[in-house]
Amino acid sequence: MPVAEFSLIYRYFSHLGRGEAVDLSVGDDCAILHLQPGERLATSVDTMVEGVHFPSDSFPEDIGFRAISTAASDLAAMGARPLGMTVALTLPDADELWLHAFSEGLAAAVSEYELPLVGGDTTRGPLTISVQVLGALPLGQAMLRNGASVGDEVFVSGTLGDAAAALAVMAQEWQPGADHVEYLLERFNRPRARLELGLQLLGSATATIDISDGLLADAEHIAAASGVKICIDPDLLPLSPALRSHDSRDTAVRWALTGGDDYELCFCLPAGVAPPAGTTLIGHVEAGVGVDCGLVLASPAGYQHFDDQ
Amino acid sequence: MPVAEFSLIYRYFSHLGRGEAVDLSVGDDCAILHLQPGERLATSVDTMVEGVHFPSDSFPEDIGFRAISTAASDLAAMGARPLGMTVALTLPDADELWLHAFSEGLAAAVSEYELPLVGGDTTRGPLTISVQVLGALPLGQAMLRNGASVGDEVFVSGTLGDAAAALAVMAQEWQPGADHVEYLLERFNRPRARLELGLQLLGSATATIDISDGLLADAEHIAAASGVKICIDPDLLPLSPALRSHDSRDTAVRWALTGGDDYELCFCLPAGVAPPAGTTLIGHVEAGVGVDCGLVLASPAGYQHFDDQ
Repeated sequence: MPVAEFSLIYRYFSHLGRGEAVDLSVGDDCAILHLQPGERLATSVDTMVEGVHFPSDSFPEDIGFRAISTAASDLAAMGARPLGMTVALTLPDADELWLHAFSEGLAAAVSEYELPLVGGDTTRGPLTISVQVLGALPLGQAMLRNGASVGDEVFVSGTLGDAAAALAVMAQEWQPGADHVEYLLERFNRPRARLELGLQLLGSATATIDISDGLLADAEHIAAASGVKICIDPDLLPLSPALRSHDSRDTAVRWALTGGDDYELCFCLPAGVAPPAGTTLIGHVEAGVGVDCGLVLASPAGYQHFDDQ
Repeated sequence: MPVAEFSLIYRYFSHLGRGEAVDLSVGDDCAILHLQPGERLATSVDTMVEGVHFPSDSFPEDIGFRAISTAASDLAAMGARPLGMTVALTLPDADELWLHAFSEGLAAAVSEYELPLVGGDTTRGPLTISVQVLGALPLGQAMLRNGASVGDEVFVSGTLGDAAAALAVMAQEWQPGADHVEYLLERFNRPRARLELGLQLLGSATATIDISDGLLADAEHIAAASGVKICIDPDLLPLSPALRSHDSRDTAVRWALTGGDDYELCFCLPAGVAPPAGTTLIGHVEAGVGVDCGLVLASPAGYQHFDDQ
């Protein structure tokens, strides 16, 4: 990419790099960050590809915000304190209007999550965004997937199935009321990483995961890693007013069980431990294997993103 | 990407995640690493796109090795000790032979650089590889670009221009002897990150950069960040036997000055400080601005990758 384009891009992103943990931000060969004594580093990477993870007509602001949310969601699922991130952006061309709008989305996420942008790489090619997040964990504490025990209770944050419903709206397979449409598209385009909830759960949750591939598929990861069976009661699933407005409750429940992209947290607590506000009891942990929701679904696991084959 | 394909990919990469600094590798929401007391974190990201950064007919082993080398080279330029990396891989399909070969290249780099693969994301789309590297720096030490002083001497490691010459060979613009062809293609396809040299220079070099865009362009970054002028003597540039075999010494020198992708280090030392073995004095630092090599080149800066427009 010509040097002038790099300068252009640098202009848009260079103000997003300041943060408490940042010693040196964008502009040298590496960024430099520091942890507090006794902290360890948590890191994860997530990629979004145009036409696979978001529709080609998405607003650039939403593409930027959503890419960061999906990556930051992995920090939330570990209970990590956000330190910073790098963004690898592959662009077909350096369209100034597009970059401006994209950087607005990044800036909104940087601000909301207190997750400064400390490094990046910009290359020419089909639109792809990889976000690597860096977080800090207290020594000896982290919420993994493998600690669920028989007798634990299972919870989720927020409401489930909204992003899947938004895809149905975008595909013109469902036409709810205008208010619901707006809400659902916002849920798909602007998912919120549950970083504060993750910090609240650190030390009490026995297992945690963020719901990116769908509740059943992600709960299955907890069940497999912990060597337990997770029982989910579909009647307990938290559904938004939009989903509750659907003529078919079965469809709404199926979205909540199998729809991905909600980025809520699913977590287990020992029986009797009070859950944080804004979370809902949806089941419990038994001896056994797999996930049981009392239903036979046509496609119970392996949520496919919107145009996966 | 269907779940079965994820399993396939996980099989190929899951054995590359062990390392001294790794508390938890691939398989949960985040990887967990630790620094030693008093160390800070260095991080950088580099992306390679098929058809932009490497030819479409490159061997998958080379694509894997080279992607990691280019990212690790940024750790070398800071003098950072390698801790680990994540790889975001976007693939048009999950071809088992391709993945096997690609993982061989990754494994070779993981072993050579002691840089375990602690996390990743695999998505469907046009072939793109983003590598984020994580390294450790002693408190208060890092080789930045901004410390060069008037009177410093300027050095480079290895030989320069080999990767540019390899591109000329691939484009059939130059046909050196068979031994030279083999050497040059190896230099392009298997560049070595100078991590050991970076560690040696920590504490003595006043400014360091890795040569990814070409000596003149990268020396310009040091000159600008340090507020000095860098004077390079073209007669001192280290050229490989392959480049010295070229009929036109001017062409060879131009490749050494402006060719990118060599991933050697360019660094400044105070006058009188002995340089490490395998490095060559190429110039000195004066008061002023920019880079002066005593030549007027048609395209002095802003090396374009092999099919950039």
